[in-house]
Amino acid sequence: MFENKDSENTSISSLGEFGLIDHLTKHFKIQNKTTVKGIGDDAAVLDPEEGKQLVVTTDMLVEGVHFDLSYMPLKHLGYKAVMVNLSDVYAMNALPSQITVSIAVSNRFPVEALEELYAGITTACEHYKVDVIGGDTTSSTTGLVISISAIGTVSEEKITYRNGAKENDLLVVTGDLGAAYLGLQILEREKQVFKVNPNAQPDLEPYSYLVERQLKPEARKDIPLLLSELDVKPTSMIDISDGLSSEVIHLCKSSNVGCNLYEDKIPLDPQVIATCEEFKMDSTTIALSGGEDYELLFTVSTKDFPKIKANPHLTVIGHMTHEKEGMHLITRANTKIPIIARGWNALTEED
Amino acid sequence: MFENKDSENTSISSLGEFGLIDHLTKHFKIQNKTTVKGIGDDAAVLDPEEGKQLVVTTDMLVEGVHFDLSYMPLKHLGYKAVMVNLSDVYAMNALPSQITVSIAVSNRFPVEALEELYAGITTACEHYKVDVIGGDTTSSTTGLVISISAIGTVSEEKITYRNGAKENDLLVVTGDLGAAYLGLQILEREKQVFKVNPNAQPDLEPYSYLVERQLKPEARKDIPLLLSELDVKPTSMIDISDGLSSEVIHLCKSSNVGCNLYEDKIPLDPQVIATCEEFKMDSTTIALSGGEDYELLFTVSTKDFPKIKANPHLTVIGHMTHEKEGMHLITRANTKIPIIARGWNALTEED
Repeated sequence: MFENKDSENTSISSLGEFGLIDHLTKHFKIQNKTTVKGIGDDAAVLDPEEGKQLVVTTDMLVEGVHFDLSYMPLKHLGYKAVMVNLSDVYAMNALPSQITVSIAVSNRFPVEALEELYAGITTACEHYKVDVIGGDTTSSTTGLVISISAIGTVSEEKITYRNGAKENDLLVVTGDLGAAYLGLQILEREKQVFKVNPNAQPDLEPYSYLVERQLKPEARKDIPLLLSELDVKPTSMIDISDGLSSEVIHLCKSSNVGCNLYEDKIPLDPQVIATCEEFKMDSTTIALSGGEDYELLFTVSTKDFPKIKANPHLTVIGHMTHEKEGMHLITRANTKIPIIARGWNALTEED
Repeated sequence: MFENKDSENTSISSLGEFGLIDHLTKHFKIQNKTTVKGIGDDAAVLDPEEGKQLVVTTDMLVEGVHFDLSYMPLKHLGYKAVMVNLSDVYAMNALPSQITVSIAVSNRFPVEALEELYAGITTACEHYKVDVIGGDTTSSTTGLVISISAIGTVSEEKITYRNGAKENDLLVVTGDLGAAYLGLQILEREKQVFKVNPNAQPDLEPYSYLVERQLKPEARKDIPLLLSELDVKPTSMIDISDGLSSEVIHLCKSSNVGCNLYEDKIPLDPQVIATCEEFKMDSTTIALSGGEDYELLFTVSTKDFPKIKANPHLTVIGHMTHEKEGMHLITRANTKIPIIARGWNALTEED
C-alpha cells in the first residue's frame, strides 16, 4: 500500500523530526478554555476548572496486533485511535477535553500517509471537542505504533467508578453488540478473496453497519449528557471494548456482587443476526466476546428504572445479585450458565 | 539476552493480559494526595490543587531507535524512560506528580524481563515522588516500545515557557554537557569488542561518569526548588535532551531573540575532556550536539546574576541579543560562528 515510491510522495526524512511534527500538528485548533498551551513547549499547560476532577487514560495500538493496514484506511485508524481513549473517559461519566498523540513510524510511510492519519485524528478531535495538546513522533524499526492519552473532566458528584454496583441494581448496556467483531470477520474474508483474485469487487452493502462499526466506531459522548438529562447517576460504569462478558466480570468483581444476564435481552442489530446465520456463528457468543463495540455498560438503582426504560439508546440486560450467587447467563431456554471471559484476542482464559 | 527459554522464565501468555497488568502494577503505591484513583478503572482520577496549573508531556522510546538492549539493562531503561518525561516537566518549572506507562512487548520477553523494566519505573517513581496512575500493556510484533505521559503541577506565577527570553538576558545551563553521548560511544565500542572477543573484560572505570549519564540519567528535580529558594524566576526554560545547539535555537526562535554562546564557558566534566582527546573528537561539538544530557537551559534577567553566580549547579554560558544579530558561538579564538542544529540522530540538518 505504501510501497509505490512515486514522485508525489514526500519522504519523512526530507522534513526532519521537528519539521515533521510542525507539519502534522499546525492545523490543530484549541477548543477548550482549560487548554492554556498546546503543542510547542516542553509540556502542555492546563488550567483545570475549579471544583472539577480530572480523569486520565491511555491506550496503545500496534500494527499487526490491533490493526491491519491492508483494510484499515489510515484516516479511519487515526479516528478510531482517538475513540478508543475517549470511550474510557465517557465510562467515568466524564467529558474529554485534551489528548496527547505519540506515533512511532517506519520510513516506509511517506509524509502523505501520516497526513491521512492525522486528518483522522483532527476530525475526531473536532467532532468531540478535544484539543491535541502534545505528542511525540519518532521512527520505528518496523510497523506503526500509536499511543494516545486522554484527559477529561467531571464533578466529584458525577464521577462513576466500576466498584459501586449494588445487589438488585439493573445492568444496562448502550447501543448494540457484536457488530464490530463481525465487521472484522467480513474484512478478513474480503482480504483473503482479494489475495486469490485481485479483480474481485466485494459487495459490502449487506454488511455496511458491521464494517462501519469496525472501521469508524464512535465513542458514546451522548451517554454522560443523556444520564445528566435523565437525572440518573449510575452506581457503576465500564467501557466494554474488550467484550461484554469480560467487562461484566470486571464490574462484578470490583463491586463485590454477582449478576444474572439475560440472553434474550442482549441488543443485536439485524445485520448481526443475519451475518451470524450466514457464518453459522452463535450471536450471543459474538455479543459476549466479540469486543471493540465501544459501548458503555452500567448499573442503576431500580428506582431509576422509570427514567431509562423507554430510552432507545439503553437496554436493561440483567440485574446484580449477591456476590455468592456468582455471575450467570440466563439462556433463552432458561438454563443458567456461568459467565467466563473469553475475548477473541485474549492470551488466556479467565474465570 | 532473552532467548534462553530456561524453566525459571514465565511466559507472558501464561498470565494473560489482565493478569500481566495486575502482576506488574500491584506494587505501585500512591504518594500524592492529588491522586484520587490510580490503576484499576477505565481511567485514573486526579483532584488538582486549587490555583495550580497542570503540565502534560509525553515521550515514546522504541527499541533499536532509542535504546539497545544488548547494553541497556531493562531496569535502567525503565528508570530512564521516566526521567525523559520528568525532565520536560521540570523544564516548565513544574513538579511532576503522575505518569501513565504504556508498553508494547513481543513474547520473546519473559515476564521476569518486564518485572525488571517495571522495577526501574518503580524506583524512579519512588525517588521522584510520582504516582503511576495508568497504562496499557500490549503485544508487539517485534521490539519493545515504551510510551510514558507525565503530569505535573505549578502555580501560574512560576510556570516558565520557552518564549519569554529578552535581549540581554543571561543564558544559563545546569550541570555539564556531552557525557551521555560519549557514554553511548563507549558502550557501542564495547559491544563491537564483545562481538569479536566475547571473553574480553571491559574496563569501564575511566568512563564511569559517562556510562552512568547514558544508562542512568537523572532529571533535574533540584532545579525548580533551587530557583524557588534563590527567588529567581527564569524568563524562559527548555530541556536540552536533544542537544544544546538545537535547544538554543528553539529558545531563541520562540522568544524572538538572538544569542551569543561562549565556547569557553560550556561546562564539561574532566572525563568528557579526556575521552574527547582519546577519541579525537571536538568536545565543543559533542556538548553542542550530543544530546541526552537531561539538563535544563534557561534565561534570567541580568538583575538576577548575583543570585546565581556562585552556584555550582548553574553556569552562565552566554547572553541573549537582538533577534537581528542571530545566534552565534563565540569560539575560544574569539571568532563568531553561526549556531546550527545538528543532533547526532537528526534526520536532517536545520538552520
